[in-house]
Amino acid sequence: MTLTLSGNAPATDALPPVERRAVLPAGFRAGGAVAGIKASGRPDLVLIASTDGPAAAAAVFTPNAFAAAPVRRSRQNLAATSDDARGGFGFAAAVVSTSGCANAATGAAGDADQDAVGGFVSDALGIDETKILHLSTGVIGTRLPLDKVAAGIAALAPTLTADDAAFAAAAEALRTTDSVTKAASATLVLPAPDGEPVPVTVSGIAKGVGMIHPNMATMLSVVLTDAPVAPEVLWGLLRPAAARTWDQLSVDGDTSTNDTVFVLASGAAGAAPVAAGSHAAAALGRAIEAVARDLARQQAADGEGAATLITTVVRGAADDADARAVARAVVSSSLVKAAAHGRDPNWGRIAGAVGNAVTASAAVLEAAGLSTAEAAARAGQAASVDPDRLHIAIAGFPVFDGTAGGPLPFDRDAAREAMTAPELVIELDLGLGDGTGEAFGCDLTEQYVIENSEYTT
Amino acid sequence: MTLTLSGNAPATDALPPVERRAVLPAGFRAGGAVAGIKASGRPDLVLIASTDGPAAAAAVFTPNAFAAAPVRRSRQNLAATSDDARGGFGFAAAVVSTSGCANAATGAAGDADQDAVGGFVSDALGIDETKILHLSTGVIGTRLPLDKVAAGIAALAPTLTADDAAFAAAAEALRTTDSVTKAASATLVLPAPDGEPVPVTVSGIAKGVGMIHPNMATMLSVVLTDAPVAPEVLWGLLRPAAARTWDQLSVDGDTSTNDTVFVLASGAAGAAPVAAGSHAAAALGRAIEAVARDLARQQAADGEGAATLITTVVRGAADDADARAVARAVVSSSLVKAAAHGRDPNWGRIAGAVGNAVTASAAVLEAAGLSTAEAAARAGQAASVDPDRLHIAIAGFPVFDGTAGGPLPFDRDAAREAMTAPELVIELDLGLGDGTGEAFGCDLTEQYVIENSEYTT
Repeated sequence: MTLTLSGNAPATDALPPVERRAVLPAGFRAGGAVAGIKASGRPDLVLIASTDGPAAAAAVFTPNAFAAAPVRRSRQNLAATSDDARGGFGFAAAVVSTSGCANAATGAAGDADQDAVGGFVSDALGIDETKILHLSTGVIGTRLPLDKVAAGIAALAPTLTADDAAFAAAAEALRTTDSVTKAASATLVLPAPDGEPVPVTVSGIAKGVGMIHPNMATMLSVVLTDAPVAPEVLWGLLRPAAARTWDQLSVDGDTSTNDTVFVLASGAAGAAPVAAGSHAAAALGRAIEAVARDLARQQAADGEGAATLITTVVRGAADDADARAVARAVVSSSLVKAAAHGRDPNWGRIAGAVGNAVTASAAVLEAAGLSTAEAAARAGQAASVDPDRLHIAIAGFPVFDGTAGGPLPFDRDAAREAMTAPELVIELDLGLGDGTGEAFGCDLTEQYVIENSEYTT
Repeated sequence: MTLTLSGNAPATDALPPVERRAVLPAGFRAGGAVAGIKASGRPDLVLIASTDGPAAAAAVFTPNAFAAAPVRRSRQNLAATSDDARGGFGFAAAVVSTSGCANAATGAAGDADQDAVGGFVSDALGIDETKILHLSTGVIGTRLPLDKVAAGIAALAPTLTADDAAFAAAAEALRTTDSVTKAASATLVLPAPDGEPVPVTVSGIAKGVGMIHPNMATMLSVVLTDAPVAPEVLWGLLRPAAARTWDQLSVDGDTSTNDTVFVLASGAAGAAPVAAGSHAAAALGRAIEAVARDLARQQAADGEGAATLITTVVRGAADDADARAVARAVVSSSLVKAAAHGRDPNWGRIAGAVGNAVTASAAVLEAAGLSTAEAAARAGQAASVDPDRLHIAIAGFPVFDGTAGGPLPFDRDAAREAMTAPELVIELDLGLGDGTGEAFGCDLTEQYVIENSEYTT
């Protein structure tokens, strides 16, 4: 299925088009299998390996203070393979993911379990344990069934394949309670060392956000590319892309202990090395952002109990950080989400949410490109908004114009009808500057409450 | 009805007991009436007046950038009667409240309407317009029916009475969709100028948080006392009390454009003036906090669609600000709220919410007593938490102890049974210091979604 990006992308530089399927870039093998972690017997084990030495790797992790064992192990491994003590980038030769058990809140025993998983992968693929990145998702507070994981890895490792079907199988095994498999791919052209154009692929798979069974949360994604790029440069492309996409995704405001995005670059496309600040880096960054944005939209649309994808597009903000903060506040508002469910063109709730918008945390602002000092100064402060300059459109209907006294007359029945579409677009112009941003969420339904109030066991 | 405060108040200095009824302190008259703003024909107009010259007044207002006309008018009036340019304190001789129309997002016309309301009150009571404080709640984006409001004020003003029943009538007229009238009173003893003990009353009425009809949000409260206290001293008592109580109240994470708390002090009790920093000020502050806390608990229990009051008590935090941030994160988590509804002792969601806790905005931290510089530095930063030191108890059942490896065995059926009580207490010990705090919320129910997804009109 090919997705046609709608005209609501506020980025000045248009992002490249995206195809919603898993396309395995050159330089990787992949596979998914049933290890038996999930009681359902569905695929629950993912392995991805680089075929020609370690790949450059960059990551963003959950800000949750109770990060799970696989998150901490991955950070440590990235730090061990680079000079980045924060664990944001380094080198990796394999990614392993287990679904059904989060290995979170399991203490020192959980750390030892995760290290054992690394040992299984190391034995099966013949690579150093520090070159392995870890993912997991599932129930919090339960231990990994190590015997099953060991057998699963030993059986899966020899079957890893360098084709799209294998990457699709990995996407399938990444799922927990997702209703659909999530994948997105973009292509770009980079110069080879001799200047000839070389096709390059960026392709990602993802799971979440679905918490249909209690404790089964977590947003995970693995993005692969055959572009040749150093870890730190790759990290420099991932962070702002994630700030504009995954950081703008909200299903219910809860951030999992396990959220992780990995980007691995094999360099196998044969292009010239992508230097920081170059046109090639900008093009690669846009492709990574396009994939990230589409995966985030797929995740929002598949949110718990969701019937409608809500996209909020903000223009005219004092700066991009304010635009993103306002967009995030709107898609995160329980009242806006409930109104979307009821097909209610309720601009009062949108205006209220705009008025409550605060800018992001210092970490998010830094990721988006602000200096540490700027980020600290801005963190948690209210975004600049002015009701007398605000313009609101719901599903294409202008409903509020602060420059014209406020509420606008509009055809409520037609607006309600337009709100029955699978995607609801809320457009805001703050009338203050050139800042743009968007955010992705979903409606709040009775089904969300029903699914999340069921008893754990 | 007398409320017995349960043992979950973490304050080191125990708060005085509270009675859940409106007790009009000396020096005030009050009343409520039907002006016809509400289509239902229920009481929708409140007037409260001081009987012996302007009272000292202090206020806290919504941080929403789209503050409604009555909020802006009240700020301006307080600023006009004191040297406090922020509009936090001053003098007031009357409070007027209209229910059914928020007069929010109404632009310059709405400001003019609110000024007309001030004119009606000024004419009816013979007091200066700058000495009038304004409240309103109701539908956003509609205009006040000035003819009805004028007639209502003219009819109500001559009937204002200095007795408890009149204050109870005001509480009744303050309601919009609240299922019960909310009032709380505390008493204390202060020294008269000659040293003899004098009884002093602190009594408050409140509305919200109920958004049973779309756009009918808003938390409003008026607290009256006959203590003699200067406006700035009163404000210094109100702000930390509000930071520990109303700022810790969450029903759905949305903050109204109209939220307002006024405290008025007539001085009519005959006690000696309460000086800043004195024992008398501390006693008065505790009484104000006790009233504020109980009103906040009544508001949480009456949240939209709510069946259960959720109280989170945090001990052992690095400081009180962290404790409050963690408590607020837990009661604000949609997943925790849904689990409470399902009587699910789901400690994984609580741990996840703790890990996501960030400290409050700079404004809240300043209100709680930090310096401006300290507040700016702390704003939006993550609270200090450590999973290996965390202890969680749900409804009295210890379920997680990080110092003992994590999950604890417990009787799930007994815990579920305990969770059927009208109040669910979640107790956390962070194991890091002496900081304490609490927060109040309610469960997330299908009824919340149903009520809030109904069409506006």
